[in-house]
Amino acid sequence: MNLSEIFDELFPICRSIAGPGIRESMQCLSRHVPFQIIGVPSGTKVFDWTVPQEWELIEASLKGPNGREILSSRNNNLHVLNFSGPIDLRLSLEDLQKNLHSLPSYPSVIPYLTSYYTNEWGFCLTDEQRKTLQPGEYHAQINARKFDGELNYAVTELPGKTDKLVLITSYLCHPSLANNELSGPLCLLSLYEKIASWANRQYTYRFLLIPETIGSIVYLSLLGRELKAHLFAGIVLTCLGGPVLSLSVKKSRRSFLGDPANVDLLADHLQQTQSKLWRLRDFDPTSGSDERQFCSPGFNLPFVQIARTIYGEYAEYHTSGDTKEFMRIDQVERSVHQIERFIKALDYEGLRLRNTSPFGEPQLGRRGMYPNMNSPNTWGYSSDRHYDERKILNMMLNLLSLADGERSLRDVASLIKSPVTELCPVADRLEAEGLVERIVP
Amino acid sequence: MNLSEIFDELFPICRSIAGPGIRESMQCLSRHVPFQIIGVPSGTKVFDWTVPQEWELIEASLKGPNGREILSSRNNNLHVLNFSGPIDLRLSLEDLQKNLHSLPSYPSVIPYLTSYYTNEWGFCLTDEQRKTLQPGEYHAQINARKFDGELNYAVTELPGKTDKLVLITSYLCHPSLANNELSGPLCLLSLYEKIASWANRQYTYRFLLIPETIGSIVYLSLLGRELKAHLFAGIVLTCLGGPVLSLSVKKSRRSFLGDPANVDLLADHLQQTQSKLWRLRDFDPTSGSDERQFCSPGFNLPFVQIARTIYGEYAEYHTSGDTKEFMRIDQVERSVHQIERFIKALDYEGLRLRNTSPFGEPQLGRRGMYPNMNSPNTWGYSSDRHYDERKILNMMLNLLSLADGERSLRDVASLIKSPVTELCPVADRLEAEGLVERIVP
Amino acid sequence: MNLSEIFDELFPICRSIAGPGIRESMQCLSRHVPFQIIGVPSGTKVFDWTVPQEWELIEASLKGPNGREILSSRNNNLHVLNFSGPIDLRLSLEDLQKNLHSLPSYPSVIPYLTSYYTNEWGFCLTDEQRKTLQPGEYHAQINARKFDGELNYAVTELPGKTDKLVLITSYLCHPSLANNELSGPLCLLSLYEKIASWANRQYTYRFLLIPETIGSIVYLSLLGRELKAHLFAGIVLTCLGGPVLSLSVKKSRRSFLGDPANVDLLADHLQQTQSKLWRLRDFDPTSGSDERQFCSPGFNLPFVQIARTIYGEYAEYHTSGDTKEFMRIDQVERSVHQIERFIKALDYEGLRLRNTSPFGEPQLGRRGMYPNMNSPNTWGYSSDRHYDERKILNMMLNLLSLADGERSLRDVASLIKSPVTELCPVADRLEAEGLVERIVP
Repeated sequence: MNLSEIFDELFPICRSIAGPGIRESMQCLSRHVPFQIIGVPSGTKVFDWTVPQEWELIEASLKGPNGREILSSRNNNLHVLNFSGPIDLRLSLEDLQKNLHSLPSYPSVIPYLTSYYTNEWGFCLTDEQRKTLQPGEYHAQINARKFDGELNYAVTELPGKTDKLVLITSYLCHPSLANNELSGPLCLLSLYEKIASWANRQYTYRFLLIPETIGSIVYLSLLGRELKAHLFAGIVLTCLGGPVLSLSVKKSRRSFLGDPANVDLLADHLQQTQSKLWRLRDFDPTSGSDERQFCSPGFNLPFVQIARTIYGEYAEYHTSGDTKEFMRIDQVERSVHQIERFIKALDYEGLRLRNTSPFGEPQLGRRGMYPNMNSPNTWGYSSDRHYDERKILNMMLNLLSLADGERSLRDVASLIKSPVTELCPVADRLEAEGLVERIVP
Repeated sequence: MNLSEIFDELFPICRSIAGPGIRESMQCLSRHVPFQIIGVPSGTKVFDWTVPQEWELIEASLKGPNGREILSSRNNNLHVLNFSGPIDLRLSLEDLQKNLHSLPSYPSVIPYLTSYYTNEWGFCLTDEQRKTLQPGEYHAQINARKFDGELNYAVTELPGKTDKLVLITSYLCHPSLANNELSGPLCLLSLYEKIASWANRQYTYRFLLIPETIGSIVYLSLLGRELKAHLFAGIVLTCLGGPVLSLSVKKSRRSFLGDPANVDLLADHLQQTQSKLWRLRDFDPTSGSDERQFCSPGFNLPFVQIARTIYGEYAEYHTSGDTKEFMRIDQVERSVHQIERFIKALDYEGLRLRNTSPFGEPQLGRRGMYPNMNSPNTWGYSSDRHYDERKILNMMLNLLSLADGERSLRDVASLIKSPVTELCPVADRLEAEGLVERIVP
Repeated sequence: MNLSEIFDELFPICRSIAGPGIRESMQCLSRHVPFQIIGVPSGTKVFDWTVPQEWELIEASLKGPNGREILSSRNNNLHVLNFSGPIDLRLSLEDLQKNLHSLPSYPSVIPYLTSYYTNEWGFCLTDEQRKTLQPGEYHAQINARKFDGELNYAVTELPGKTDKLVLITSYLCHPSLANNELSGPLCLLSLYEKIASWANRQYTYRFLLIPETIGSIVYLSLLGRELKAHLFAGIVLTCLGGPVLSLSVKKSRRSFLGDPANVDLLADHLQQTQSKLWRLRDFDPTSGSDERQFCSPGFNLPFVQIARTIYGEYAEYHTSGDTKEFMRIDQVERSVHQIERFIKALDYEGLRLRNTSPFGEPQLGRRGMYPNMNSPNTWGYSSDRHYDERKILNMMLNLLSLADGERSLRDVASLIKSPVTELCPVADRLEAEGLVERIVP
């Protein structure tokens, strides 16, 4: 799966929350993953909201006093206020100004603006260009259609041993943005490929692409009850490229209210034992992505959000500066690798370990797992090899002591302050010797 | 209500724990608040104690070898060991010395001493004056009466929606002391006036003035059972003037033992969110005021003590240096203001908030409560006005997320690290929009 | 009981985990304490282990090329790899080397090595001596017997008011080592003498001497069920001499897993209130002594280990440097003194205190327990005597406030941040006045 090529195909499409742009994008992704694309009619009531019409942009352009083209959506989708038009107006620069949007504090980029639920129209441009505009008559044209159609989402599933569900989701509604748009779906695509290749899956994995906010509200109105009954963990993927070195997990509302889900506890554990790889954020309903809806009090689902370079950490957010060069495909791939290990550990969350010889220590010596001579030379820390052997032996002894059938591998790992990922091969060795057994409670 | 005038009327009266002085003081206060004055006969058994006789001082004076008056209670009530006499003795300076009390470490003030349950007698004077006494015969006269009468307390009530009780109490038994005597009753008087003016009261508010220690023991012997059944919170008012800037809450014994009452939790919350205004002390039975009795293990009532300049923080404590000038009427008024807000928040403790649209976020945009265009110019922190609007919007979003019918406004305020007082108008706005409802569990 | 003389008698005996050496040592100790010596036959299956044969060493010696004796167990028991032989071999220095053991990092001492469950043989010597060995033919003789016999342990008991058991144990299987061998049994002997002299004992005290690891596994296989039903606390004594000033308590596995036993809570309390006397270690199954077996998950007994100079804190560990001079009899005696006070406090763990006058404060003044005059001179901190009197009065008032029949003396001591040992005389005074009663829940 070549993420770079898929990126190049998706980037130019003019997406919005509903319309041909997002549908075309989903069809493109379906060539790599067997997505089902679902449509919900415009006007459908969904909780406190209504499904909007579709928006189709043909072209938006602004011409200056001399008839010269100032800007056009052909050059950059961000030039048009998303979801605006149709209009065809001639007006003075003075009248035009209130429909122009630029960033004085970051004058070289075009800002990205939307106005889904009003009849506003507008153009976005760099502040540098705006300052060059001369007085005179301007011709503003937004050749666009709003019409009853449907709102789409794309979904697919990898079955596991149980019908308990892990839902991995991202959004697809920003046109021509990279970190805060395509990094999420690309990561999701690649995780599908990885998890499909696992030898076995404890949980069923569902992959969902939606337009942000209204998409999750629509999905919850249809399937929220199923999620409340079956969801083991949900993960919102967003902003997974960019320069930041570690990943950041925004924990669930349940965790914020003192009732953390397994997925929260796993994030806590990994942050505590691998603090260079993981950062944590508390749940916060005032900013973020679809976890705001999945965690709303009526659902309160065990949803986290995982991101690398988040809103507030980069000036390019919601501007034309959020490019492939800023996002970096290799950083997205690093996110895939690290999140796969996170999800792998999540898949172990439901297992418990039990020492099968719990009365006194088992005699490891006769199994060749313990040195038969108690010597400072063979036993102490006289070389790196001995040091590593001792470290593994200590993990064995700890696991034998703590595996009482009530603790998960993560519980044990936390108690001995090791990342759960390092404990897995030790558990495998003990299981192979029949000294530990895994049980599903 | 002019606290300064009331102070001037009360200060000269020679009070003790029982007798005409305290009764006269209560009658004076009854002109401002409709107190009922209760009497309990001398000799009544009250738990491990017995109600003492009344003590009436006519005059105490000490004359020197030349017949010149050394000191007289006419000049300062503190000159006589409180509750001592009658005596009429002529004796040498040497014999007199063991009945004289002064403070070598603070030589310019008269100490305040009491001896309620013995037949001691004595005079108190400045150490400076004591050093001038010449050898010779002295004439010590304490013209006082001890007789069977009654011990008094004063009580009144403001009814609320429920019969759950908030008891506000202070003591009235020290003669001619300011911060550690009159600041409490003055504060209580003013709080009565404020709370009487509230639009509504969830709880019933009772106001109680007693002589310290024996008064609360008497009151508990009569009404302790009622308090155990109905008391929601109790507040002992003491030492509410003086130079200290913040108020100090001594939390209840219940809090000390890990079972905090609402009034303790409110104090914790306000200290955490307004740390410049509030200090905390743990319960401590070895010093303090009547909370020692209200919190005794047989009752263990949810009582706190609130003070400004406390015992140990000022050298003038229990001396003639504890004057109106030290206490300052304006500092007492500041105490009233801050304690009223504390009690107002206490009145909300029994309410819970519930989001009426808990499935996904409500669409605030169509209610004009959320910006319809997602723009860095209109939305970011480009001006103070936007900053404040965003702060209030964030409080709204937080309250909507956290108001699940199980949390009080204080719970929500603590979670988002804001003082509960700032959250009230936001709750009002959401309630007015029908987005939140208040329920009484 | 002269610990120094007993030490001198035990030190030269060549002990191992089974055989005449450990039996002779137990018989020696039985002259001071009425131990019963139990035997369990070789070959008995005990959980995952098998009781080994006995090992009897007659003599081990190594002769050099010129027939001169290089080393002999007559000079030091550590010269022979413990449990090795019999052999009688002539071999070159080169072939001999792999059966020689020395410490290059600590060249002046003989290391102590064992190999209980193999057919290894070997000699231990100083690295200094090893370097002087010349090429040529060597004569290695280990005149030893391995034969079916029994594994021994020694046990005795002091009855208490209840059949709840406190088990005090140490090990006796290392030949000619001091801190890491004899300090434990000597301490146990002396504690027996002390506890036998107590006026009364709440618990029954059992004293147990075993060979390390296999001894506790054997004991658990016989009596583990009884311990699970009746054990209130267990204490492993080890390494109780040496230069370290404080004692270190290794807490139980239960404590590590968040379910601390009384003995753990007592250790926590004493460490918090007497931090110069007590250190704490968390349970750790990877090193230590018999607590590893007593705390194994199938038993999970409330066992702590107490030590002074522990493994890792001294280079002399498991070498001929671990001598009487290193251990110091006076340090062992200090351990006895401090552990007796620990056990005394443990004996109070099951008691609760109840204030018999819980309604308001009792009137201490009429009992002469409270100053009748409230004076800065008689009451304040004007002298050391007043300071101490006030400190005791404060402890009384605290104890009266907190003794609600649900709290132990340690609970109260922790709340007021005093070591429980200081609170005992105060509790006695209040009990004598009838103000507090002790109850057994």
